[in-house]
Amino acid sequence: MQLHKLYSSLAIRNENKIVLLVIDGLGGMSHKDYGYKTELEYANHPNLDRLALRGTTGMLTPILPGVTPGSGPAHLGLFGLDPISFNIGRGVLEALGIGIVPEPTDVLARGNFCTVDEEGVIIDRRAGRIPTHICEQRLALLRDVRLPQADMELHAVQDHRFVLRLKGAGLASDIDNTDPGVVGARPKPANALTQQAETTASIVNTFVEQAFDRLKGQSAANALVLRGFSMLPDIPSFRELYRLRSAALALYPMYKGLARTVGMDILECLETHWDQYDYFFIHYKYTDSCGEDGDFLSKVNHIEAVDGCIDSLIRLDPAVLAITGDHSTPAGLKSHSWHPVPLLLVSSTCRMDGSTAFTENVCARGALGNIESKYLMGLLLGHALRLDKFGA
Amino acid sequence: MQLHKLYSSLAIRNENKIVLLVIDGLGGMSHKDYGYKTELEYANHPNLDRLALRGTTGMLTPILPGVTPGSGPAHLGLFGLDPISFNIGRGVLEALGIGIVPEPTDVLARGNFCTVDEEGVIIDRRAGRIPTHICEQRLALLRDVRLPQADMELHAVQDHRFVLRLKGAGLASDIDNTDPGVVGARPKPANALTQQAETTASIVNTFVEQAFDRLKGQSAANALVLRGFSMLPDIPSFRELYRLRSAALALYPMYKGLARTVGMDILECLETHWDQYDYFFIHYKYTDSCGEDGDFLSKVNHIEAVDGCIDSLIRLDPAVLAITGDHSTPAGLKSHSWHPVPLLLVSSTCRMDGSTAFTENVCARGALGNIESKYLMGLLLGHALRLDKFGA
Repeated sequence: MQLHKLYSSLAIRNENKIVLLVIDGLGGMSHKDYGYKTELEYANHPNLDRLALRGTTGMLTPILPGVTPGSGPAHLGLFGLDPISFNIGRGVLEALGIGIVPEPTDVLARGNFCTVDEEGVIIDRRAGRIPTHICEQRLALLRDVRLPQADMELHAVQDHRFVLRLKGAGLASDIDNTDPGVVGARPKPANALTQQAETTASIVNTFVEQAFDRLKGQSAANALVLRGFSMLPDIPSFRELYRLRSAALALYPMYKGLARTVGMDILECLETHWDQYDYFFIHYKYTDSCGEDGDFLSKVNHIEAVDGCIDSLIRLDPAVLAITGDHSTPAGLKSHSWHPVPLLLVSSTCRMDGSTAFTENVCARGALGNIESKYLMGLLLGHALRLDKFGA
Repeated sequence: MQLHKLYSSLAIRNENKIVLLVIDGLGGMSHKDYGYKTELEYANHPNLDRLALRGTTGMLTPILPGVTPGSGPAHLGLFGLDPISFNIGRGVLEALGIGIVPEPTDVLARGNFCTVDEEGVIIDRRAGRIPTHICEQRLALLRDVRLPQADMELHAVQDHRFVLRLKGAGLASDIDNTDPGVVGARPKPANALTQQAETTASIVNTFVEQAFDRLKGQSAANALVLRGFSMLPDIPSFRELYRLRSAALALYPMYKGLARTVGMDILECLETHWDQYDYFFIHYKYTDSCGEDGDFLSKVNHIEAVDGCIDSLIRLDPAVLAITGDHSTPAGLKSHSWHPVPLLLVSSTCRMDGSTAFTENVCARGALGNIESKYLMGLLLGHALRLDKFGA
């Protein structure tokens, strides 16, 4: 049985509230410039440490040992959905990132403007990273493209990047990238990987041909490539799955979008809606951004900023409070990584494990052990007494 | 998705080198004659301990909790292949052990000479453990056996043991042992377990009948039994799977054979070939042999001998160095065991976990946790930055 269906089959309603605080990219790596400590070990976070005394700790492995997750699968795991079965494609994620929540029948692709020479050969894959307003101007040239059997939307993202959204009946996304991935080659025609996707691929090719016509003559950003053709996976909502009225507090569109895909409402403020929901997902982004920038000390500062807000969560007195990350983003790697993420769970129903701090090395020895992220949902529901007994 | 296919789908090439040192049968058991220490706890290994300070530790469970592995599955696990799906049969392993790497179409069986009375009833299942040269003499009597639809090879192993190799088209190995497993019974006819194996079973029976004819009149070793009919599983190579140029340093034929089955080259010396490969598997056998002999102190000595060689590995400065065993072989049990095996991983990308020694009890509390051996490959590739991000 799939994990979420098992949890779902046991889910019961009660009054106990769950708060999940996701500190994006929380986990780090021993950094040689900072005494071989991680950002979390280096930071001063007395409130989190005090909370650890009251709780139980462990480690979350986002996907499997050694595997670095993208933001999509990392969050689906935290939501109790096996991130390998429920993969979210690049096109869908890009759309979520600009606030578009696709319909299940839409096909989405990430588009890049590029520059080609007179022969149509790519000479700059990012079109000199044109500013976003030029990207918008180019997209304006394409608005009157008309496609057979599908409607089309184009949305600028940032710089040379945009989203192509195809809307219609019977669309399919098993289509290979048109991006050859290198300079010195022509954009490839859209190639259906399954018979089912042949019509969609031919619609995409019509779009590309008309787009090339309209972009001809521009000195830069005079062509485009598409990749990550994808559809929203058929994801059940938290209400259906876990009988939870759920809501999210997030600043960045991508995380709002991920939350919406599992049926969460988006809130501006938690306190004023406290009575209306059972489960709150709070997403804190800046730790990840600083990690991606390789800025160890800024990540440390943001961890300390989060620590300063912990008391406001405690005051709400949720039945279960869990604090973790979606994945690690060590400043030393300037990217997401495979390292497991520390987890702290506080509840009147937890088994206090004597953890005296909230760090990677304490959590790695915590009583919850090292588990895949997809099991967190079960722990949250369990500690909230929201899972019925399995079997007689 | 199968684990190795997931890792495979993410594998990328770079310059980072991986060294895996397998100390065969490394793990031990608390031994009452030695202060209830294991061999690794009793041994003096300052170099391994110093390395632990720089690395991260954990435990590998070879198959599943409580399950004792043979050498074949134990190594396949270390190579990232689920040892339950990719089982290597006794016949194939026996062939690998004497330096034969079977073709994928061959059927192999382990043969034992036995002694039967005038009625054909087994009175000694091991034919008095005849010396190997007598085994070779008996096999010489069988060389002129001619089989329909298959070629045959016979190879002495040791004492009364030999390998039967059948070569031909359309052979299958789903054949029950002819060994009744007890004295006082006759060797059984080869019995096909599937329809597909019926032809092969009848070929085997022809072999056995002709062999019995030729062995008749000998006072001992005048009959034979066969077991472990098997074919090489369809194992992808490290190059196909992980984009690794891989090589092995091993003395014993079985480990060379296991390495060859995943496409490793066999080296005599590591240093001189350092530039030509990405992944090096080094196998140290004697710890296992001493454990099998129940010789606690000799196993201790061999652990100390390995410790003396650690610096030569460190000097090569691999991006990732991992030290573990394929399984435990506690001297107190005189056999392989199910106990998890200590793991030490050192890399500039690791999260140092404060381990101060390389022992079972330190590793059991290490930050990597207790994971199945099949996940080690992902950790090695991850720490070598050789796995792409999963999902967007």
